[in-house]
Amino acid sequence: MPVVVDTARFLADLHELRQIGTYKTGVHRPTYSKEDMDSRRWLMTKMAEIGLEPEMDGIGNVIGRHPGPGPHLLVGSHIETQNQAGWLDGALGVVAALALARSGLPVDVAAYVDEEGHFDVGFLGSRSLIGDLTEADLDKARNRTDGTPLRQALRAAGLSGEPRFRLDPTRYKGAYELHIEQGTQLEREGLRAGVVTGIVAIWQFAIRIVGQQDHAGGTTMAERKDAGLAAVRLLAAIDREFPKVCGRRSTWTTGRITLSPGAPSIIPGEANILFQFRDVEMAVLERMEECLVRLVQESNRNERTEAFLEVIDKAIPAVCDPAMMTALEAAAREHAPDAWQFMPSGAGHDSQNLARIMPAAMLFTPSIGGISHHWAEDTKEEDLALCCQILATAAERFLAG
Amino acid sequence: MPVVVDTARFLADLHELRQIGTYKTGVHRPTYSKEDMDSRRWLMTKMAEIGLEPEMDGIGNVIGRHPGPGPHLLVGSHIETQNQAGWLDGALGVVAALALARSGLPVDVAAYVDEEGHFDVGFLGSRSLIGDLTEADLDKARNRTDGTPLRQALRAAGLSGEPRFRLDPTRYKGAYELHIEQGTQLEREGLRAGVVTGIVAIWQFAIRIVGQQDHAGGTTMAERKDAGLAAVRLLAAIDREFPKVCGRRSTWTTGRITLSPGAPSIIPGEANILFQFRDVEMAVLERMEECLVRLVQESNRNERTEAFLEVIDKAIPAVCDPAMMTALEAAAREHAPDAWQFMPSGAGHDSQNLARIMPAAMLFTPSIGGISHHWAEDTKEEDLALCCQILATAAERFLAG
Repeated sequence: MPVVVDTARFLADLHELRQIGTYKTGVHRPTYSKEDMDSRRWLMTKMAEIGLEPEMDGIGNVIGRHPGPGPHLLVGSHIETQNQAGWLDGALGVVAALALARSGLPVDVAAYVDEEGHFDVGFLGSRSLIGDLTEADLDKARNRTDGTPLRQALRAAGLSGEPRFRLDPTRYKGAYELHIEQGTQLEREGLRAGVVTGIVAIWQFAIRIVGQQDHAGGTTMAERKDAGLAAVRLLAAIDREFPKVCGRRSTWTTGRITLSPGAPSIIPGEANILFQFRDVEMAVLERMEECLVRLVQESNRNERTEAFLEVIDKAIPAVCDPAMMTALEAAAREHAPDAWQFMPSGAGHDSQNLARIMPAAMLFTPSIGGISHHWAEDTKEEDLALCCQILATAAERFLAG
Repeated sequence: MPVVVDTARFLADLHELRQIGTYKTGVHRPTYSKEDMDSRRWLMTKMAEIGLEPEMDGIGNVIGRHPGPGPHLLVGSHIETQNQAGWLDGALGVVAALALARSGLPVDVAAYVDEEGHFDVGFLGSRSLIGDLTEADLDKARNRTDGTPLRQALRAAGLSGEPRFRLDPTRYKGAYELHIEQGTQLEREGLRAGVVTGIVAIWQFAIRIVGQQDHAGGTTMAERKDAGLAAVRLLAAIDREFPKVCGRRSTWTTGRITLSPGAPSIIPGEANILFQFRDVEMAVLERMEECLVRLVQESNRNERTEAFLEVIDKAIPAVCDPAMMTALEAAAREHAPDAWQFMPSGAGHDSQNLARIMPAAMLFTPSIGGISHHWAEDTKEEDLALCCQILATAAERFLAG
């Protein structure tokens, strides 16, 4: 008998989790905050209720192991959120994994910690699970917003001294993840599910520009070494030049600009920029980086300031496993005929790390208005339920294949 | 017998004041901070020691009245500083005024509060003294950095309920102010004093750009409403267009850019910019404002975001009093032959407000390297002493004239 998900229970669980760290219609659960840790403990209780064996590791990953025989699937996502963000981003994939386990599938349920990158390492949990993070990496890591050292945050969360888990790839036939699209491609086409073909890599940079802090009246325009103005000119050049070297679905974003000291009558002596770009193709990523390096060099030839480019993170784009995609495709054809498509993921996900040690694939639900990383993020409940069922059917097919 | 300043005492006073709120080789005395209030009380003690009658008013202005007969001169500057800024900016003019009073001149010594504009009104003290600030203005005023209401800051400083002073223009023949240049014009010409011909007006604006906060991966470049990118494009347009409409000595400065929420993977939903420009000519100021308004309109036609331009402050440029300038010129010829010049002030000063109710004029000392609003700001002690003597001689001449 084909697997059937208890979608009412699945939606009830999602709404229960939404109560932890409520912010307007969204939630606020930054990594290792009280709300985040509460949600991890909530998850462990749920796991135990359906017969899984829950454990939290020394970096905050929660895994509920299926006690029966294999082959097993690893299914999950993340449970912390961006600041004042949506109720589904991450939570959906974790609660869907619970639903699959509850339906009887041999699924280990996982919540990978800090997919949202509150700490400057990026993908703390999934990278730790595949053995890609050394203790020295953890020693250096800091919170991007307030600079808190990761070690201090772990201590405050009660995780100091606990061992970190390492995934055993021989235990798993593959890893599935359900996630919201965080864009409008599905919605615009009137579709209800997206089978992901690959995950973009995010390349993150910090650009620091050093000028000379001065009085905004006494210093003539010709004498100034205005770090803020140099930043504006560099970002305007990126805006002009990147469309010439990017790929069809590349994105690039300046998330933060900080001028120091940041007062109305002082010429900024320093500017700090957080910049990132994304693509699914390595060649395109490398072309964009080349362009960025060239523009920083040009700035240093043209301006009276000095710009420094620091690489924060350069991930590798991931391709989804063909057999796992085929299982998703068949399940989508069954439950949502003519209402699904293949598509790349413009956002980074833990699955890109899992894909380095086992087969991995992802399914997307639509996002209303494409809104994401904002408390107004939402998805129709019938689409959530449909996609959870597609994922379960695909998991069953793939395990049987 | 011509007036002679005790310059050793004058320099000793300056160094004593430097001890209050020391930061590296500069000082940190933001308006109404403990350090700022300590410096005001220090000043009142000094005033009393030389026979002046010191009083502090309900907004923090300190005035030490000369007890003898008139005509009097009002001499002073400000005593609070920008954050982590220089030891002379403001303090020099206040301590020089003390030196003039000590030398026997009929001088009222003044420290006008918040010339540095920590609060979003600008020139709180001198504007209050000339009757240009209503109680309603004070009700609305907030600290530019942390948003503290002015009323709350006044309460914390123990000033609530005290009356605000109003200057009686019939008491004064004029107002003099000694200040550092905050630029490199004197230094580059090898000069030691500058007789100021006029003071620029500062026009301050807040630009708010509203877009749509979104995930930096899921949202394609074509779909984005990126408030940060719109800000960069607008500031790049200002950089391009302002040189076409500005005057010979105009300056324009973006002191702060804030992107919200300011995270690496989120497209900024809002950008806030502090922008200002300065000139000594009303016609030039109006031309620059016209240009700014046009560029904001262009942004709103070209971008998918909406920009709002808010006027924070539009001061009126001031011309220095001819008779007071002539007295300064004669004193400079006497004490610094061939080592002085006439020059406009690129920075705003309290004297521009005093000039609205009485004759006013200013003298500049050089600034080493032109550095200002930074703790490294400095001036040679022999130039400080020389300019204090020039000011005293000019004051004596003007009073006699």
